Amino acid sequence: MNIHNFYAGPAILPKQVFQKSADAILNFNDSGLSILEISHRSKDFVEVMEKTNSMVKELLSVPEDYEVLFLTGGASSQFYMTSMNLLNNDDTAAFVDTGTWSTKAIKEAKHFGNIEVIASSADTGYTTIPTIDGETKDFKFVHITTNNTIYGTQYANIPSVNAPLIGDMSSDIFSRPLDVSKFDLIYAGAQKNLGPAGVTLVIVKKDILGKVDRDIPTMLDYNTHIKKGSSFNTPPVFPIFVSMLSLEWLKENGGVAGAEKRNLEKSSLLYKAIDDNDLFNTPVQGADRSKMNVVFKLNDDGLEDAFLAAAASANCVGVKGHRSVGGFRASIYNAMEKASVEALANVINDFKG
Amino acid sequence: MNIHNFYAGPAILPKQVFQKSADAILNFNDSGLSILEISHRSKDFVEVMEKTNSMVKELLSVPEDYEVLFLTGGASSQFYMTSMNLLNNDDTAAFVDTGTWSTKAIKEAKHFGNIEVIASSADTGYTTIPTIDGETKDFKFVHITTNNTIYGTQYANIPSVNAPLIGDMSSDIFSRPLDVSKFDLIYAGAQKNLGPAGVTLVIVKKDILGKVDRDIPTMLDYNTHIKKGSSFNTPPVFPIFVSMLSLEWLKENGGVAGAEKRNLEKSSLLYKAIDDNDLFNTPVQGADRSKMNVVFKLNDDGLEDAFLAAAASANCVGVKGHRSVGGFRASIYNAMEKASVEALANVINDFKG
Repeated sequence: MNIHNFYAGPAILPKQVFQKSADAILNFNDSGLSILEISHRSKDFVEVMEKTNSMVKELLSVPEDYEVLFLTGGASSQFYMTSMNLLNNDDTAAFVDTGTWSTKAIKEAKHFGNIEVIASSADTGYTTIPTIDGETKDFKFVHITTNNTIYGTQYANIPSVNAPLIGDMSSDIFSRPLDVSKFDLIYAGAQKNLGPAGVTLVIVKKDILGKVDRDIPTMLDYNTHIKKGSSFNTPPVFPIFVSMLSLEWLKENGGVAGAEKRNLEKSSLLYKAIDDNDLFNTPVQGADRSKMNVVFKLNDDGLEDAFLAAAASANCVGVKGHRSVGGFRASIYNAMEKASVEALANVINDFKG
Repeated sequence: MNIHNFYAGPAILPKQVFQKSADAILNFNDSGLSILEISHRSKDFVEVMEKTNSMVKELLSVPEDYEVLFLTGGASSQFYMTSMNLLNNDDTAAFVDTGTWSTKAIKEAKHFGNIEVIASSADTGYTTIPTIDGETKDFKFVHITTNNTIYGTQYANIPSVNAPLIGDMSSDIFSRPLDVSKFDLIYAGAQKNLGPAGVTLVIVKKDILGKVDRDIPTMLDYNTHIKKGSSFNTPPVFPIFVSMLSLEWLKENGGVAGAEKRNLEKSSLLYKAIDDNDLFNTPVQGADRSKMNVVFKLNDDGLEDAFLAAAASANCVGVKGHRSVGGFRASIYNAMEKASVEALANVINDFKG
C-alpha cells in the first residue's frame, strides 16, 4: 500500500531513510548495538554528529564564519533564544508579521527587548508576503519567516536589509539554494525537510554572539553549544542520525538545486490542477505562493467532506487545512515524489462536487 | 553476537523495544506510514502520548494533583527551569551537593535566586551520600540528585525535609518503587531507564506553579505544557514512542517492584565480584552504593588497559569510567539482563592482572 503523505510536519521523509533508520535500530554500524542505546560520546556517534554538521555546511555552502548547531525545543524555543542572546532590554528588533508563526516569534521576543513590526500581511489575511519599506539600519536585527506553513505563503526572494537578518526557515530550508551570508542567524525545526521531530537546526554567524549584558543560563547560550559541538549535554541522538540520512539522500539527489527543480515542478502541477477546476480557489496568488505548502479551498464549504473522502480513496492523507484557516493544505516537502503529487492532482482534476 | 552494553547513557533498552521501534519506523500501526512521518496531532500519535502519560502515572502511582510532562532539553534544561519557575530573585533554595550533576544544577539555579548548599559530600570525594542536618522549612525548595552516575552513589532512602523537595532522578527513576508524594517536582532525562535521548520526563505538583513574579517565555513555563498536554509545540514524537514501549516492557515485567528486585540482585552480584578480587576496590561503600552505576577501580592503574581488553573479549562494552574520575563504571539499568552482569562479573572474577 503506497500512502501519499501530505502532513505539514512531522512530515514525509525519503523511503531509504526509513529503511536505514530501522536497520540502525536493530544493529548500528555492525556494532551489535542499537543506535538507541549507544553513548553520545562513542566514536560511532561522534562521527554521525560531525557528518551531519559537515553535510549541512556543504549542502548550503555555509560560510566559514558561521557555526551549525543541533539543539532541541523546536523553532518555538528559538523564538525566545534569539532575542535572549541578541537583544538588550533597551534594544529594538524589527519583525515582519506573516502569520501565526511570526506572531508567536514576536510575542516571545518581547520578553527581552523592544519589538517593532515593520511590515505585515495581516490586512490581506496573511495571503501575501509584505514588502519591507523604509530604513532598517537602526534595528538590532530583522526577523522573517521565510515560508508560512499555515497560510501557504513563501518569500520568492530573501529581502535585503541593513541590519542582521534572522530567518525562521523551519518549513523551507533545504528546499532551494540559499545564500546563507544574507542572514546572521537561521533556525529550523527539523520535522519538514530535514528529519523527524526532536532536533532543531541553528546556523549562526559567530561574531553576533556574546554581546548582550543579560545573564543567560548555560543551556540557553548559543556559545555553550558552539564550544561543545552541540554535545554540551546529551543531544537527541536518533533525530540527528535520521537527519544525517536525509541529508545524504538530498546530496545523492542533486542537493538543494535538485530539490528546487523538483519542488517547482511538483508545486506547479498542483497549483495548475486547482486553478483549472472552477470548484476550487487558492487564497494565495503569484510569486507569494509557497512551493512547500499548497493551500486551497472549495468555493462551496459544504463539499469539503466529499473532497476529503475522494482524497482518502486515492490514499492521500494529511490534506485537511490547519484548524485555524480550514480548507485544504497539501504539504509537498523535498521527500514527496512527483507521483504522489500527481495522485492528488488527479483527485482535484476529477472532483465534480 | 550478544553485546553486553554497560554505557552510562544513552543506555541499554529492552530488546523487544528495539524490534517494535524498527517495525514502527517501517509501518506504524498498520497505517502504511512511518512513525517518523506522522503528525503529532494525528489520532495515532495522540494515543501514544496519552498512553505514555498514563503508564508513568500507573507505574509510579502518581497522585492526582501531579502532572506528567514530556519536554526536551534534558535534565540540563531542568537545572534552570525549576528555579526559573519556582524561585523569586530574593528567595533562597537549598541544594545537596553530591557531585558533578548537583554542581551543575546549583550553578544554573543561581541565575534565578539565592542558593544555599545545605549538605555536601565533596569532602569524601563524593563517595558518600551526605545527611541533611538542621531545619529546612524556610527554603523555597530542597534539591537532591537521587543517583549519581559518575560517582556511583545513590540515596538508599529519600530524605524527609520540611520544604518542597525536587529530585533529579535521571539515572534511577523507574528502578525501584517511589513515593512521588515526597516530592513536589521530579525530573529525569529519558536516556537511562525510560527511553532514548531526546525527551525529558517531568512530574510536578500543580499547586507549586504560577507563584513567581518573573516574566517567563511561554516555552519555559511548565503551565504552558500542562495546558497543552506536552503538545504546545511539536513534541519529540519518536523518543516518546520508544519510551512508551519501554514502559510497556516494564509493566509486563513486574513494574518498579520487579525492577527493584532484579536491580538488587544484579548490583549485589557485581559488587561481590569486585569485593572478592583483591586487585579491585570500590570507592563507595555500604548503603550509599548505587544499584544503577557500579563504580570500581584497580589498585594498580597500570592494569586498566588489560582489564578493558578482558572485558572487550567477553563482549562487555562501555565499562570505562567517566573521564573525570577514571577507573571503571558498569551501568546496569533496568533493561540489562542478569546474564550480562554475570558476564562482567566473570571477567572480574577471572582477572589476575
